[in-house]
Amino acid sequence: MKSFHVSVHIVPRKGLLDPQGKAVADALHTLGFHAVADVHVGRHLIIETAAADAAAAEAAVRDMCGRLLANPVTEDFEIAGVSAA
Amino acid sequence: MKSFHVSVHIVPRKGLLDPQGKAVADALHTLGFHAVADVHVGRHLIIETAAADAAAAEAAVRDMCGRLLANPVTEDFEIAGVSAA
Repeated sequence: MKSFHVSVHIVPRKGLLDPQGKAVADALHTLGFHAVADVHVGRHLIIETAAADAAAAEAAVRDMCGRLLANPVTEDFEIAGVSAA
Repeated sequence: MKSFHVSVHIVPRKGLLDPQGKAVADALHTLGFHAVADVHVGRHLIIETAAADAAAAEAAVRDMCGRLLANPVTEDFEIAGVSAA
């Protein structure tokens, strides 16, 4: 068993309301950043886990996303990277 | 002016407490994922902005992070990628 760092992006599903992103975009406009068209706000998780190899670490994290980390109704997730720790 | 998507990771500074990550790690252990050693939870932002080129888009987003998006006392940010929209 080796140690891996798996990073995950969890973002609101496209087409659904993203009120946090809208609030950030409005605040940026107020600060003078008028070139900003849109903002999406999601979560960035880094999970340190032991696994036999990188593929097993990624599979375990996909399972974690399905069971706890992501809301399957409103969010999409993607594995952004797997690196040996 | 072209449109760019700039993605940013904002994470708790290393060495500072990350109570949200601790809570997620505990919940994963409860679900049976005992191989998980640690979890860090940050934010993943995607900013759609108009700029002359990719370097200008990245510079604008760095300025946004410093002035609004990241807490300079407790968080670090990194530009994860810039792509033409």
